[in-house]
Amino acid sequence: MSITVVGTMAFDAIETPFDKTDKIVGGSATYVAYAASNFLKPVQQISIVGYDFPLEELNDLKSRGVATEGVEIIADKKSFFWSGKYHLDMNTRDTLVTDLNVLADFNPRVPVSYQGCDFLMLGNLVPAIQRSVIEQFTKRPKLIVLDTMNFWIETAWEDLKNVFTMVDVLLVNDSEARQISGEVSLVKAAKKILTMGPKFLIVKKGEHGALLFHENNVFFAPALPLEDVFDPTGAGDTFAGGFIGYLAKTEDISFENMKTAIIVGSAMASFCVEKFGVQRLKEISKEDIDERLQQFVQLVNFDIALV
Amino acid sequence: MSITVVGTMAFDAIETPFDKTDKIVGGSATYVAYAASNFLKPVQQISIVGYDFPLEELNDLKSRGVATEGVEIIADKKSFFWSGKYHLDMNTRDTLVTDLNVLADFNPRVPVSYQGCDFLMLGNLVPAIQRSVIEQFTKRPKLIVLDTMNFWIETAWEDLKNVFTMVDVLLVNDSEARQISGEVSLVKAAKKILTMGPKFLIVKKGEHGALLFHENNVFFAPALPLEDVFDPTGAGDTFAGGFIGYLAKTEDISFENMKTAIIVGSAMASFCVEKFGVQRLKEISKEDIDERLQQFVQLVNFDIALV
Repeated sequence: MSITVVGTMAFDAIETPFDKTDKIVGGSATYVAYAASNFLKPVQQISIVGYDFPLEELNDLKSRGVATEGVEIIADKKSFFWSGKYHLDMNTRDTLVTDLNVLADFNPRVPVSYQGCDFLMLGNLVPAIQRSVIEQFTKRPKLIVLDTMNFWIETAWEDLKNVFTMVDVLLVNDSEARQISGEVSLVKAAKKILTMGPKFLIVKKGEHGALLFHENNVFFAPALPLEDVFDPTGAGDTFAGGFIGYLAKTEDISFENMKTAIIVGSAMASFCVEKFGVQRLKEISKEDIDERLQQFVQLVNFDIALV
Repeated sequence: MSITVVGTMAFDAIETPFDKTDKIVGGSATYVAYAASNFLKPVQQISIVGYDFPLEELNDLKSRGVATEGVEIIADKKSFFWSGKYHLDMNTRDTLVTDLNVLADFNPRVPVSYQGCDFLMLGNLVPAIQRSVIEQFTKRPKLIVLDTMNFWIETAWEDLKNVFTMVDVLLVNDSEARQISGEVSLVKAAKKILTMGPKFLIVKKGEHGALLFHENNVFFAPALPLEDVFDPTGAGDTFAGGFIGYLAKTEDISFENMKTAIIVGSAMASFCVEKFGVQRLKEISKEDIDERLQQFVQLVNFDIALV
């Protein structure tokens, strides 16, 4: 069993109401890999970086069981760079800088050694690139999870709709679900989106948790109430990594098992926001994860027998 | 076992993005009574109405086991009237009209027949009136639940703080919890508020569910994802009625049982928003409630054994 992840590996500079960083390592595929590698190895990475990306970061990932054969290194260009500033509520942010750099030429090739993978995580990228990755697999992965964002809904809608028909799980936030469907009610939005291709829809609501829709079923996973949210960057990708990592580990893609996978994703995301970048994800142990999962059990567990 | 409820019985005129009503029956004590009377009788009502309040409404409540001896009827004044208009998100609203009418003279007296009650629900009112009701009980109720709002936090803070020291459970929404504590983080807000008197704090987050804090424990109850929210008016009071009704029925005020009580409150609130005013609450049966509670079990239930 293996997971293939496609996405960015990049530098971020982040400013929150409480602190700020210079350039630190980020990118969707980085967060997914740090989260998923707690559950399954290998996590097969497909990405692109420039000459400035620290080799020690790639080695860190390798030591966690992340395969980096699919990470292209461009000798004469810089890595993708994003800079953003969070508002006081930590739910909204302004982008200050987006330097595409190597990402402008990203045309990922799936290494032969990655063929036969069962779980494919398509991080937020140009829809045409996401499609190209799917099409390069000679055997369709058992489960394909797609992330996207408002930018592609607005600028590459036809391509995106086409990718919808090729995936199993779509992962968006609440405003993107409303944008895709034209519905204010998330229940109505989900019904529409589930006719567009994906059999499962996950709607991320940040500090308000996440919803999983499948046929006429719905499941809700809360976010863990935290004293401090230090840096929300990468929380969605970390959620995705925990989700797909747990599914791959358990080799069970039923709705019932996806419920647990979403709780695992929420638990991983709750670590991510505790420090800048991937720092907290590098520190945590299996015991930390188990303990946090028990907190989720306590958070939502109730006894209805008496009603 | 009995519940005493203090609050308004009133007329509302409501406008939503989808529909509007003329004057219909509303008021916090009305919603609490409709919800709580599904679980326990008698619900002992303390309120004030004018000559225009429909007797058939009082009779409807009586037929559900609501005692109305404590409802004062003023022969020469009109009932309290509120009119509001909801925004497109259905989470925020503008008040169009507030006619206090009889409420300007509300000085509630606890009837002798209500003495000895174990559960007291103090609906949103002037804090000094809430205190006066507590003080009229010769034996302190086993559990006192307090609702309040931003207006009293801003205009009667000293009185409100004093009432905090007399109650067991405080029920506020997220922005009120932040306002009371001066903390953005709800976890930090809860820690502060739990030093101010209440042993339990419930933070209502509307469509995003509710949190229960007690000592170092936290529990989260989701709102049921609905296709349509028709009218949110009274949802918070209906939640309170389900909560205290269930606690009174089970005669158990432990944290564990409060978890279930909050799910019951959320289930009752999910009915409330399906039609204007108390209409839906009048229609539902024991079977409807049981079925909805099962939906909540499905909504949050997961199996963590395999992680």
